[in-house]
Amino acid sequence: MKPYVWHTRVYYEDTDAGGVVYYANYLKYMERARTEWLRSLGVEQDTLAKDLNVLFAVRSVAINYKKPARFNDALTVTVVAHALKPASISFKQDISQQGDEAKLFTTSEVNVVCLNTNDFSPNPIPKNLYQTIQSGEINNDY
Amino acid sequence: MKPYVWHTRVYYEDTDAGGVVYYANYLKYMERARTEWLRSLGVEQDTLAKDLNVLFAVRSVAINYKKPARFNDALTVTVVAHALKPASISFKQDISQQGDEAKLFTTSEVNVVCLNTNDFSPNPIPKNLYQTIQSGEINNDY
Amino acid sequence: MKPYVWHTRVYYEDTDAGGVVYYANYLKYMERARTEWLRSLGVEQDTLAKDLNVLFAVRSVAINYKKPARFNDALTVTVVAHALKPASISFKQDISQQGDEAKLFTTSEVNVVCLNTNDFSPNPIPKNLYQTIQSGEINNDY
Amino acid sequence: MKPYVWHTRVYYEDTDAGGVVYYANYLKYMERARTEWLRSLGVEQDTLAKDLNVLFAVRSVAINYKKPARFNDALTVTVVAHALKPASISFKQDISQQGDEAKLFTTSEVNVVCLNTNDFSPNPIPKNLYQTIQSGEINNDY
Repeated sequence: MKPYVWHTRVYYEDTDAGGVVYYANYLKYMERARTEWLRSLGVEQDTLAKDLNVLFAVRSVAINYKKPARFNDALTVTVVAHALKPASISFKQDISQQGDEAKLFTTSEVNVVCLNTNDFSPNPIPKNLYQTIQSGEINNDY
Repeated sequence: MKPYVWHTRVYYEDTDAGGVVYYANYLKYMERARTEWLRSLGVEQDTLAKDLNVLFAVRSVAINYKKPARFNDALTVTVVAHALKPASISFKQDISQQGDEAKLFTTSEVNVVCLNTNDFSPNPIPKNLYQTIQSGEINNDY
Repeated sequence: MKPYVWHTRVYYEDTDAGGVVYYANYLKYMERARTEWLRSLGVEQDTLAKDLNVLFAVRSVAINYKKPARFNDALTVTVVAHALKPASISFKQDISQQGDEAKLFTTSEVNVVCLNTNDFSPNPIPKNLYQTIQSGEINNDY
Repeated sequence: MKPYVWHTRVYYEDTDAGGVVYYANYLKYMERARTEWLRSLGVEQDTLAKDLNVLFAVRSVAINYKKPARFNDALTVTVVAHALKPASISFKQDISQQGDEAKLFTTSEVNVVCLNTNDFSPNPIPKNLYQTIQSGEINNDY
């Protein structure tokens, strides 16, 4: 499956005294990319919550740190929805050097569940979104 | 006026590639200390919001960076409510080396306003809290 | 003076339980914008440190919070170097709604000093950079 | 094996617009607890780097999010070094409600590798520290 690709950059706020990106901050890049992937599919999470009373919550993350990213590095963050269930999505997400994507900083698997905003119980993924994800549509020209 | 005193520590998450605390993160220490100061006065902000429909929002910060704090530094954070109005509080807050408080990392002035949770309009500070602050009560043995 | 203009967006990581951007995080947007402003002038801070042994450190911030930014807001961040001294720069930086810049979230004044990386003593701003800033050059097509 | 136990609290900075702790921030609590665990064993990471030229870097994290923690929650963070190799340590770390530790927010497994500060190549864990960890010593009265 073709990955959705998004770019960001390492700023001072992301690094720590070791001179590299602090390990928790890669999860921020990953979420920004998932947000932009949803947006590329026409889905805004704030309207999703307001109009359909659903939100997405992360259930698990497994992340491997391969090489450290540093201040000023331009990053490529990928999103692949590789397993789709009625109320959850499993993603593979890599972070690499923009322009040299063989240089991997992290690889990861993220499981996200769809919840009802009222009581945080599992909720089916809205039908249109489910079908869009299922079709494997990628809008990288967004 | 006697300051309220609270302690915290610099962890990796707080530092940046320059080897020192990232400049925005001192504001986190300052807010943790204001939260603990309120708690020491018997006020929990979540119950304040739920029961009295009020919250505090920062209107302005003026901060001077004197010396950089580093990984592992133990910090002393002070809170002095030096000007009290019906719907706002001005604080002086210093951050220094714990055990050597003459070594100042930052000094600051923070203005906080009391708002109604419904429409975010200014709201008088709840009477009991106002009187407690006015009395200059400090509960450092909390 | 014409401001340098840079855009970013509010992600979940930036917000807090009040539903709005956490007050310290505006300082992150401001620093990203100063980094991009320097980059637009041809200056990379990592090469500045490696080749010329200088870095910039923030000496003071005065920020006013006008309106809260929220999840998903697209932001316009400005950088104006309004006062230039041999070893320091004073900036005015505003953050507003992208596309509706009259809606101001924050206004601020930031003083930054140029330091020697060896002993953190004040260091003249490198001559080429000083002259570029003095000329008021803005490269918004970067 | 008896876990090392450390406590912290949820502040506004840790939460997001969903009203709960942002998913990356649990990794911050986990690292603070590993730092305090090392300190409880007599090891300061800054002196470790200065005197012995070694540092610890995270190689992988697998974290499960069970229940969301919220603003003001008091947390119990555990550290169990359940697998020790010459140059790496595997930890189990749980985060739960302080005083009601059956209420689990997250469970996790974290693999940390010991590196040489000069070239970031794997480096044996310093002998004294290795033996202390191997002995299963826990200093919770620290």
